[in-house]
Amino acid sequence: MLATGLLAFAATMVHADEGMWTYDNFPSEAVKTKYGFGPDKQWLEQVRLSSVRLAGGCSGSLVSENGLVMTNHHCARSCISQNSTKEKNLMESGFYAGSSGEEAKCPEIEVNQLLGIIDITDRINAATKGLADRQYNDALKAEMSRAEKECATDDKLRCDVVTLYHGGRYHLYKYRRFQDVRLVFAPEGEIAHFGGDLDNFMFPRYCLDVSFLRIYDNGQPAKTEHYLKWSPSGSKDGDLAFVPGNPGKTSRLFTVAELEYERDVALPRRLMRLAEERGMLVEFGERGPEQKRISEARLLSVENSYKGVKGRYEALLDKNFFATKVASEQSFRARIDADPAKHATYGGAWDAVAGAKEAQRKVLKRYSMVEGGAESSEGFASTLFGHARALVRAADELAKPNEQRLREYTDSRLPALKQKLFSSAPIYDEYEIQALTFSLTKLREDLGPDDPLVKKLFGKSSPRELATAVVNGSQLKDIATRKQMFEGGKRAVDASSDAMIKLARLVDQDARAIRKQYEDEIEAVLKKNGELIGRANFEIYGTGTYPDATFSPRLSYGQVKGFGADGVTVTPVTRMAGLFDRATGQDPFILPESWLKARASIDLSTPMNFSSTNDIIGGNSGSPVVDREGRVSGLIFDGNIYSLGGDYGFNGSVNRAVAVDSSALLEALDKVYHATRVLDEIRPKSAGR
Amino acid sequence: MLATGLLAFAATMVHADEGMWTYDNFPSEAVKTKYGFGPDKQWLEQVRLSSVRLAGGCSGSLVSENGLVMTNHHCARSCISQNSTKEKNLMESGFYAGSSGEEAKCPEIEVNQLLGIIDITDRINAATKGLADRQYNDALKAEMSRAEKECATDDKLRCDVVTLYHGGRYHLYKYRRFQDVRLVFAPEGEIAHFGGDLDNFMFPRYCLDVSFLRIYDNGQPAKTEHYLKWSPSGSKDGDLAFVPGNPGKTSRLFTVAELEYERDVALPRRLMRLAEERGMLVEFGERGPEQKRISEARLLSVENSYKGVKGRYEALLDKNFFATKVASEQSFRARIDADPAKHATYGGAWDAVAGAKEAQRKVLKRYSMVEGGAESSEGFASTLFGHARALVRAADELAKPNEQRLREYTDSRLPALKQKLFSSAPIYDEYEIQALTFSLTKLREDLGPDDPLVKKLFGKSSPRELATAVVNGSQLKDIATRKQMFEGGKRAVDASSDAMIKLARLVDQDARAIRKQYEDEIEAVLKKNGELIGRANFEIYGTGTYPDATFSPRLSYGQVKGFGADGVTVTPVTRMAGLFDRATGQDPFILPESWLKARASIDLSTPMNFSSTNDIIGGNSGSPVVDREGRVSGLIFDGNIYSLGGDYGFNGSVNRAVAVDSSALLEALDKVYHATRVLDEIRPKSAGR
Repeated sequence: MLATGLLAFAATMVHADEGMWTYDNFPSEAVKTKYGFGPDKQWLEQVRLSSVRLAGGCSGSLVSENGLVMTNHHCARSCISQNSTKEKNLMESGFYAGSSGEEAKCPEIEVNQLLGIIDITDRINAATKGLADRQYNDALKAEMSRAEKECATDDKLRCDVVTLYHGGRYHLYKYRRFQDVRLVFAPEGEIAHFGGDLDNFMFPRYCLDVSFLRIYDNGQPAKTEHYLKWSPSGSKDGDLAFVPGNPGKTSRLFTVAELEYERDVALPRRLMRLAEERGMLVEFGERGPEQKRISEARLLSVENSYKGVKGRYEALLDKNFFATKVASEQSFRARIDADPAKHATYGGAWDAVAGAKEAQRKVLKRYSMVEGGAESSEGFASTLFGHARALVRAADELAKPNEQRLREYTDSRLPALKQKLFSSAPIYDEYEIQALTFSLTKLREDLGPDDPLVKKLFGKSSPRELATAVVNGSQLKDIATRKQMFEGGKRAVDASSDAMIKLARLVDQDARAIRKQYEDEIEAVLKKNGELIGRANFEIYGTGTYPDATFSPRLSYGQVKGFGADGVTVTPVTRMAGLFDRATGQDPFILPESWLKARASIDLSTPMNFSSTNDIIGGNSGSPVVDREGRVSGLIFDGNIYSLGGDYGFNGSVNRAVAVDSSALLEALDKVYHATRVLDEIRPKSAGR
Repeated sequence: MLATGLLAFAATMVHADEGMWTYDNFPSEAVKTKYGFGPDKQWLEQVRLSSVRLAGGCSGSLVSENGLVMTNHHCARSCISQNSTKEKNLMESGFYAGSSGEEAKCPEIEVNQLLGIIDITDRINAATKGLADRQYNDALKAEMSRAEKECATDDKLRCDVVTLYHGGRYHLYKYRRFQDVRLVFAPEGEIAHFGGDLDNFMFPRYCLDVSFLRIYDNGQPAKTEHYLKWSPSGSKDGDLAFVPGNPGKTSRLFTVAELEYERDVALPRRLMRLAEERGMLVEFGERGPEQKRISEARLLSVENSYKGVKGRYEALLDKNFFATKVASEQSFRARIDADPAKHATYGGAWDAVAGAKEAQRKVLKRYSMVEGGAESSEGFASTLFGHARALVRAADELAKPNEQRLREYTDSRLPALKQKLFSSAPIYDEYEIQALTFSLTKLREDLGPDDPLVKKLFGKSSPRELATAVVNGSQLKDIATRKQMFEGGKRAVDASSDAMIKLARLVDQDARAIRKQYEDEIEAVLKKNGELIGRANFEIYGTGTYPDATFSPRLSYGQVKGFGADGVTVTPVTRMAGLFDRATGQDPFILPESWLKARASIDLSTPMNFSSTNDIIGGNSGSPVVDREGRVSGLIFDGNIYSLGGDYGFNGSVNRAVAVDSSALLEALDKVYHATRVLDEIRPKSAGR
């Protein structure tokens, strides 16, 4: 199904629109050769400064001079759902702030705007020079924490060291940080994710997966000099399309041993857990409408992950694809081994990585269950437990020098930590108990009933009894209590008789121990040797390549284009008429009342969604699609089913990004939602009306 | 983890107690050489005639002259649960018939006692000679149906053609069939599966997984000339142990392409579905005690399958193990190819199998969802739908000549079909709707919302609406209605306005079409070429080997023995004292009241469970363990975690069968349950009391 990865880059570059390019290395010449237009420095800077990152894992764009941010509905889902109540479910009804005062605070959204990038590769290399394994890893982290602290001189700045090319380069990214973010507009869930899980990752498609947020500065809408203007016409087949955004993570440079680990261990494990949680959640929602409401955001996220991970898993099971990975590694290693100097420096890296992955198999269950793995806090999936752990650890960590702390407690990370810890988002006991019961059941299953930690945790309790006791016995739902305990530091935490704090304390020694073992014996080896392989790649391919995605700003190029698969040719643009055709009135094909009412006034020939050849991945959600004039022509919200293998390689013939057309956004805001406040801010003056 | 399969048989035979032997080919000499005792013909016949098969998928043994059958609690679970009501849950309370009149009918259990075996290989080969693919498959099935009908001259006989060595041999098995089976004794679920899913497939172990049934003949307890006497002493470390029983299915002769299909397609798919169903069922049980009761049997079965399939999956992921499979296939093929005659006959079989497995990937979803796969009727998991389909199809099939019918509607299968169709087992609307909603959701997900069949089935309904409508709109819960419709034949079925019948009719054409495609294009190729490979094996290894398991009577030998794994040495016998130590009072480690009350009178040094080296697999559940004198020394109920790869190969160093010790059975029946009726029937007279 999938044909090429980065290592086969040189051969395919002229054919496929592959690459998640850093702004400092964008292949404008190649794009110009292929499409007759290559962005210049000014174009790139304007697009970069008009693009933002949502720290929780999405992208967005500034679309007015008053801090209006366009992103996906699913990127603002936490905010929409946290602003909902039993009486008023905004996931169902949608939201529109008719005035500035009605814009609703998002308790946990942080928006980042990239100000600049500094290459600190030499500084990092100097700090780690001659070190191996644990010492290497400790020195690396300490130096990163030091650099970040020096850079982030106040809480309005966020600085992250980004490891590019798996350690071939270290860049310090400096962002303007906005934590006062408010909800301006969101459509009903039914139209935002029309087709639900069935249509997810599919194309043709008919979703209005959009929301508008606004960033605030000192309590006022932020003035944003750079923002994207609106295309008057939307997209059509063949149009050149750029996608700025923050692709989360790709694994195209993974060694074969790492890919085998994904295929045989990590992905099947995650899939089985997600499948079980999905079965549980769907049925939990059957308890009643309120239970459905409070668990909906998690269910949507579980279903999205499940389908996405399944696609990645199936890509790795493709024998032909996997064989190309094996072959490129072999030929690359042969090139290294043919040069004695390179062989001496890099030759051992692959076996070292393979050894670490073997070791990882042995600690996987304990590490992910006790300390937290792919799903955060796998064994303790509870918001209250997350708060408790943060409090218990902050008490210990903040007493240490910055560079000796666990990375998430360093000074430059504290604003993010505090936003989460002091969030006003509602916490529901019934759901907390449910989620914790489920995850504690899995923890006990994975470690076994005879494990000393399991015995210590559970005593004679069942998972449900333990979960119920710690949720009911905790005061951490109260923000003031959390603030008090955070301010009170170690003394307050040690003195606390809060049941959730006690649970977090009880498990902390074991959790830190397995984390240390993981970091020293596995992470350190993977980093050190990943860096060697990254450098080897860099030496041989130079800057003609792009680094694996790292949830930092990138730009991809491509064109609006359909695809052919399984003997069917799919055209790239759907129309609003198709949306009405597909609506059965039954979940997940329900059209909201607002659309049914507006039907007569809607121009049914309006483009709804389109597919394009841009190379994107999770994290790009909410990215704008930008035309050659740098104007918004669409809004990325998904990829097609063939894009799911994109984690491991890009197949330009069928891998497609999926976007809402910009004219669908205008049509809906106008005819369906009468959202004049938003329209007036974004509508191109030239388009009139 | 696993070291050898059948193809490496010759090298390992002297070391490991490998093999599920047919009675006509038991390696008595080899056993004698190793253990100083080899069973003679008379011993084998007595054991064979004292062993029975539970047609639903278990084994058992006759343990008195009055038709008393010993098997596992989990083998009688359907009966125990079908005899339960909201007021009296026998899964919880256990059951003991204090008098003959209190013995409770099992609506769906059929017991088979093997009377004899006839080799019909030549007859079958003559019927299929020169045919290929579909013609071959049709002729094969027709001849099997013919042979079975000739043999089963009345409903008290059951005749099955068993395909051994994947078609190397065809044997006609003739059984005495008992459909009047009654429950005599069952302990509480808590002690039967003590440790629940956590301890399942584990050792050390502490379960009393036993039940006693009785077979009836003309309304009276059957007189059973052959039965097993009781060992006075139970088992101890090193004892020679025989296990007669009906191992269900092994895949040790699978080609590499078939194993890859299991590893990459079939097993992950099943695991994900089981995981999701498990999550759903656990949460469904939280609706209330009655919902828990009516879904418990299915949940236990799902959890058992999940853990078992996961073990098989992990065995196949073991790279070393898989490499031995690849190597043995290569060397075997090399031997075939070295001989021009053999090459001409057999050489193409492996590639043909591989081609069929490729084709199977393409039809898997539709076939399993619409016609039924590993989980029966995957897309329509409902007892009522099962009845509806049986009625719809019987109406068509019974009008055809016997040998042209679908195999499950041939004359020799009708008694089994009728037992199921006219079963008095209760059917619960709420659970029916739940199970059908779940499976219809999966069907729609697998086929996609745009599939014509999906559109035809659902119209504008959601899965839950459709499931609710067909369950509530059906009269098939009523046995008389089912009988009437069965008697009424096609006219009655066609005229019916029963909603479930209409659903079964609606889907039948599509279901038959995909089944036909599967049988013609895949099954036929696999059978034909599997037969070629089977014959090639047979030509080269002769009768020195045993065939893959086929849920027909086999005998394995071994000894009571512990194992060492992960640096821990596990001794082979647990004691009743350990059971009390392990009881926390919390699910799944709850001891029933009866045991807590009896504790003082129990001899705590009584052996509870033991492990042995016997080569067994699912289907052997309920098998007796028999000592050299042919007496009951235990009751098989499980294997350890290392036995789960046994589907693909036997690793004698860690693969262990797990049994209840016969002295634990006596101690419990006496001290805990005061079950004198059972004790008096089975207790060895020599043991006194």
